[in-house]
Amino acid sequence: MQLTDLETPALVLDRNRLDHNIARMREHITSLGVALRPHVKTAKSMDVVQRALEGQPGTPEHRPGGVTVSTLKEAEYFLSNGVTDILYAVGIAPNKLAHVAELMAKGADMTILLDSAEAADIVAQKGEALGVQFAALIEIDSDGHRSGIKPGDPRLLEIGNRLHGRAGSRLRGVMTHAGDSYNSGSTDAIRAMAERERAAVVECARALRDAGLPCDIVSVGSTPTATCAESMEGVTEVRAGVFMFFDLFMAGLGVCTTEDIALSVLTSVIGHQEDRNWIITDAGWMAMSRDRGTAKQRVDQGYGVVCDLASRPIDDLIVADTNQEHGIIADRNGRPIDMSMFPVGMLLRILPNHACATAAQHSQYHVVAGEPVVEAVWPRFSGW
Amino acid sequence: MQLTDLETPALVLDRNRLDHNIARMREHITSLGVALRPHVKTAKSMDVVQRALEGQPGTPEHRPGGVTVSTLKEAEYFLSNGVTDILYAVGIAPNKLAHVAELMAKGADMTILLDSAEAADIVAQKGEALGVQFAALIEIDSDGHRSGIKPGDPRLLEIGNRLHGRAGSRLRGVMTHAGDSYNSGSTDAIRAMAERERAAVVECARALRDAGLPCDIVSVGSTPTATCAESMEGVTEVRAGVFMFFDLFMAGLGVCTTEDIALSVLTSVIGHQEDRNWIITDAGWMAMSRDRGTAKQRVDQGYGVVCDLASRPIDDLIVADTNQEHGIIADRNGRPIDMSMFPVGMLLRILPNHACATAAQHSQYHVVAGEPVVEAVWPRFSGW
Repeated sequence: MQLTDLETPALVLDRNRLDHNIARMREHITSLGVALRPHVKTAKSMDVVQRALEGQPGTPEHRPGGVTVSTLKEAEYFLSNGVTDILYAVGIAPNKLAHVAELMAKGADMTILLDSAEAADIVAQKGEALGVQFAALIEIDSDGHRSGIKPGDPRLLEIGNRLHGRAGSRLRGVMTHAGDSYNSGSTDAIRAMAERERAAVVECARALRDAGLPCDIVSVGSTPTATCAESMEGVTEVRAGVFMFFDLFMAGLGVCTTEDIALSVLTSVIGHQEDRNWIITDAGWMAMSRDRGTAKQRVDQGYGVVCDLASRPIDDLIVADTNQEHGIIADRNGRPIDMSMFPVGMLLRILPNHACATAAQHSQYHVVAGEPVVEAVWPRFSGW
Repeated sequence: MQLTDLETPALVLDRNRLDHNIARMREHITSLGVALRPHVKTAKSMDVVQRALEGQPGTPEHRPGGVTVSTLKEAEYFLSNGVTDILYAVGIAPNKLAHVAELMAKGADMTILLDSAEAADIVAQKGEALGVQFAALIEIDSDGHRSGIKPGDPRLLEIGNRLHGRAGSRLRGVMTHAGDSYNSGSTDAIRAMAERERAAVVECARALRDAGLPCDIVSVGSTPTATCAESMEGVTEVRAGVFMFFDLFMAGLGVCTTEDIALSVLTSVIGHQEDRNWIITDAGWMAMSRDRGTAKQRVDQGYGVVCDLASRPIDDLIVADTNQEHGIIADRNGRPIDMSMFPVGMLLRILPNHACATAAQHSQYHVVAGEPVVEAVWPRFSGW
């Protein structure tokens, strides 16, 4: 099957780029002496994630094959594919605890996350009621962007003490996500954030241990900081997900180049508005997602960069606007487009702003490897 | 089952509001003497759409039960549910014609759309090659927002002549979508746009008929213009979809109130950042979609308006920001929040910016009718 045999829109994954991105991250994380616990929220596909799990180094608490999930549906799926070491890296909601216990009963070594004494008590009590001991990390806030306990906050020990060694709960360690690295202006700034991220969890791990509490897992992660970090001293594992595919937002941060982006959306030209210099396609926001992350970066890439079938960007063409199932392609600088070069039915590939969001709109990857031949179709899932 | 029994996030649909919205639109369109051809791209569910199909008036060319689709997957699904009269209202891509022919072979009365002589030739030739006669509408551009031929453009007749009475194609009429009505500043402005939309297709229909060409279908539609239109003279059918659910964007346009919005996302409080006045929830952009349509309206509703379990807005709380599986609730005006009112595990309902985009992130509707009792679970689908 060729790309030209597909109905559009369709999600295309370049396996060469995927493998290259994974190898680079694995070498970097391995060279820093820690384990990579891939975040599966981007790919939601065993075919993709198993490539990131190959050759992982193990640690006492973190066996090779561990993953990070953002939903219990991801946990269900990866457990059914033989992955047992699962970190659910979103603060636990009480209504999910029975489901977590079910996963544990099916063989999952689940680790959950929380950042308050209130949640710790709920978890301990629910664990006891269900007859399971939940293992939890305490979320650390290393950059003020979302959840977590700040280093130095006395509540850290309070939460640790409430979790530790109860019938329904135990403390496994600390975790942070330097999400603010997405707002960085340079790779130097990201490097500094990676160090801040590392220092924050290591300080909290030390505080817990100094108080006689266990802290086997010291977990950091975000694709920008994982890519740029120079030291992982005191850390046991790194979480990252979007690095497998990369996207225009990461390219805008300087964490990758557009040539590294493994994900694209195949689309057809369906019309033209010559007086407005628009090419109309059938990849709208439903196929690209509504993510406009690059709008706040130095170069606004619209809803995506327009490439030819070989994934080479065409001039300064971007998807300037979208409707649900329509894309509007225009020149970034408003220059006229020679419409005769883009006949009705021509296929284009669009590089996305945000791989997690764009992939989520699709149920399968059409896998290519340089050539426009579809060598495999890998299923993926969405939802909760 | 109660809403409190669900794992969050989950999509909730209020059947009372749905039925009210459908009844109001049906009465309005019926009073204007034309047929309603519901657009199913918002709901993607027979359980929802059959409520909009009940009691439709018929026209010679448009039998009761006709729907508008935005993908051939929608066409497949609604055909399998007994709906045969299907308008695929996105300019046809050549790689979809074989699929359209398959749907016709299965009993669908398919109408496709195009806006160029180039596409008309492709359709006619492909139809002849496949041994089918494709029925097509010509897309009319009534407001410059996307695709279509402007009234008065001589290419209209050229396209009509290329389609008409060929072995592989026939001309069925004209269609327009006043998408620019989404940028209106008042319902008066929308009313004027509805008239412009009507006048544009009626003028084009007359031009085709004056040239001896057939024009059985004269189709207009968008939820804002359908809601506000005062005349449908010369029109045969109205397409609209989002009116069934409504959303904050439509409320911002003045086309509905927040009390009409039938769709919400159920979420749990998972934490707090007291020093920032944030409540953290488990409904991030994956559950809400990345749609931020209200950002360009007078009142920016963030990623959604925060409501209690009975769908009543709480003070000035909005989802101010999101990550993939995290929502950050803040007060619209930066006022402090009494966190004791929002304990971990508390359930909230979030009204969305854009029903089409938010529903697309979910695979089912949890149906309620005023009370927090889930009276049904209706499946929905996504993709192509």
